[in-house]
Amino acid sequence: MQASASGRIGSVRTATRAVETAQGWQVEGEKIFISGGDQDMTPRILHLVLARSGDQASGVRGLSLFLVPSHDDDGNRLPVTITRIEEKMGLHASPTCQMTFDAAPAELLGIEGEGLRAMFTMMNHARLDVALQGVAHAARATAIARAYTATRRQGRDGVTLDAHADVRRMLDDAETLAMGGRALVHLAMVEMERGEHPDLVDFLTPVCKFTCTEAGVTAANLGMQALGGYGYLREYRIEQTLRDARVAAIYEGTNGIHAATLAGRLLRNAGGAAATAFARFLAEAPEALDVWQRARTVLLEAEDPAPAADAFMRLTAHAALVVVWQRFRAAADHAPDPQRLRHLAKRAAARAPLLMRHYADLVVLERAEASSCGQRPGCRAALGNPGGPVPSDRGGFKPRRSVATGSPAPAR
Amino acid sequence: MQASASGRIGSVRTATRAVETAQGWQVEGEKIFISGGDQDMTPRILHLVLARSGDQASGVRGLSLFLVPSHDDDGNRLPVTITRIEEKMGLHASPTCQMTFDAAPAELLGIEGEGLRAMFTMMNHARLDVALQGVAHAARATAIARAYTATRRQGRDGVTLDAHADVRRMLDDAETLAMGGRALVHLAMVEMERGEHPDLVDFLTPVCKFTCTEAGVTAANLGMQALGGYGYLREYRIEQTLRDARVAAIYEGTNGIHAATLAGRLLRNAGGAAATAFARFLAEAPEALDVWQRARTVLLEAEDPAPAADAFMRLTAHAALVVVWQRFRAAADHAPDPQRLRHLAKRAAARAPLLMRHYADLVVLERAEASSCGQRPGCRAALGNPGGPVPSDRGGFKPRRSVATGSPAPAR
Repeated sequence: MQASASGRIGSVRTATRAVETAQGWQVEGEKIFISGGDQDMTPRILHLVLARSGDQASGVRGLSLFLVPSHDDDGNRLPVTITRIEEKMGLHASPTCQMTFDAAPAELLGIEGEGLRAMFTMMNHARLDVALQGVAHAARATAIARAYTATRRQGRDGVTLDAHADVRRMLDDAETLAMGGRALVHLAMVEMERGEHPDLVDFLTPVCKFTCTEAGVTAANLGMQALGGYGYLREYRIEQTLRDARVAAIYEGTNGIHAATLAGRLLRNAGGAAATAFARFLAEAPEALDVWQRARTVLLEAEDPAPAADAFMRLTAHAALVVVWQRFRAAADHAPDPQRLRHLAKRAAARAPLLMRHYADLVVLERAEASSCGQRPGCRAALGNPGGPVPSDRGGFKPRRSVATGSPAPAR
Repeated sequence: MQASASGRIGSVRTATRAVETAQGWQVEGEKIFISGGDQDMTPRILHLVLARSGDQASGVRGLSLFLVPSHDDDGNRLPVTITRIEEKMGLHASPTCQMTFDAAPAELLGIEGEGLRAMFTMMNHARLDVALQGVAHAARATAIARAYTATRRQGRDGVTLDAHADVRRMLDDAETLAMGGRALVHLAMVEMERGEHPDLVDFLTPVCKFTCTEAGVTAANLGMQALGGYGYLREYRIEQTLRDARVAAIYEGTNGIHAATLAGRLLRNAGGAAATAFARFLAEAPEALDVWQRARTVLLEAEDPAPAADAFMRLTAHAALVVVWQRFRAAADHAPDPQRLRHLAKRAAARAPLLMRHYADLVVLERAEASSCGQRPGCRAALGNPGGPVPSDRGGFKPRRSVATGSPAPAR
């Protein structure tokens, strides 16, 4: 059963252990945020578990991947136990479980010590899958809002809601997010299948994950707003889309982590090969390339790219979408509704320079603020405690303690 | 009992009627989206109802305000019936009711035919109240996120989450939204009490409603993101803040309606007196005033301000917040944590020019697109059907029919 990113990364820290016995491998430890950790749809669940097969000092080279069944071949429950099912904002069709493995029989998958590499291969696929969830949420929100606003009449002149300029803006924005996101993931997945530009796939993967999951939430918000009060009711289903979409920006690595990866590792490692592959991709949109390259240089010169990572991710997404919408526009004659596609492409092309300039300037600003802070003694310390003393009695929660380790479970 | 904006405006259209009989006034008709339409906390509920006391041709001058009790003095139920309680995304402590009045005894409030004026007086108060709900949601989200990220440790170096640059960005943004919004509503409410600048209050009211309810949603999203996976769980309560905050952008007039009011009536009526009052308010921030005045001129020259209304509202909000943060900065020595307030003020001041330029350019762009569309024959028609044929079987809803009128209930 596929685990969520938090579960997987958490697994490294909560130190699930694997021991080889005379009866084969056994896994022991605790996992959190396991999607579909249990269900009644199949007689048996096969858990894919990353566990430490070497000693603690072996680091990531001591992690191996295991297959851990919930039941044996005779249907008897094995020591794989659900200790908690989380109550969530949405995603109610997917039980999110906390579970313990108590010397559970396991089968080694692949090579011992190569577990993390295998896991990351799967996670890169999973990140594009989650990006597609965002696309689906955006498309679903657009469909609900279109259908509703095309029939509901509003205002003194009795026109349908979608004839109002502000509603039209929201429908256009939502559809642009859905279509642009879908094309972006399509590009990344085709490149992944082809295998000719792995650096470009590396670069596009966090961009897709961040951009499309944000698109899902934004489009759901726009769609709900287009429905007005009815959008807030369960009956029209768009509030479910919003609740379900929200988690996609969090799981499979929070969007903040993907932004940090982009601004850090993917700009710098291997001589910036991934970023260079992306620059080649942008070559067909010279103005977008120019803006993006300058921001890339600013970040490469920054001591710490983290403060500007969010702005740089947004700039990168808008630059990539310039290429996407140019291609849409060039192919518009083949669309079911060429006029509509041309309208959206033209609209996107007109807005992209404004958005890119905004985020490029924000990259420069964040970088300047971070370096000016770095030069003034005590500056970071002064910012270290947002809002003064922490009112610990006001947050309304107690950090949960991990059953297995006694320490607070990892947050993200 | 205070009704929601949809209910009130709907009342005009669903034509709740009032008839004067020998036993006094009686009200008949249907109301939708009535907040707290029924509850068990008090033995009697007094409904404030706008109803038509004149004939249909009398227009708004035929609307009067009535007090309609749910029970008589002996505790007997009067013909005031709840026909439905809505299932909503959030706001579960407030039952949202559909109700019918069937010749219910009523008491005229104020002067016959002056009902709408009385209602609007109350609604302007209510809009600032809803703006404060947004402020409260933003402040609550900030408090939860601060408390959580100050204690939860994350990453290899074991620092608390709030030491990470991207988390700090989210905390700063959320707190800036909460503080800026609170100060903006404070300004408007003080002016309302003083009564010296009613034009400024008229102008600031939709700005507060739009800006602060957006702030509530945005800060709740930021706070949830700062908590990561735990933010999506009910246990940490921030998902409730997000669900509850979302409705504030919809009720008391959707934010789109407030943006349209600002770009339309408040820029144009009475020689633009409200906008001129706002320009005087901006005088202490000359650069913000300059950007805003140019956008105001663009909108005044536009045939139809509606397409640019959203961008103009956002520009206006950012301009107003420049004044707010200048005042915060000037008064920082008196704050509980002067260093923190100065940090947020400096940060806001650095970002405001970027945001204002972005939305000012978007105003120009929206206006240019709208007028170029107006000149090309068939352009509006081509845009009138977003996404081609409407897949009416995919939206998953049937328009609900109003019990009283047989026509679909008003949407927003």
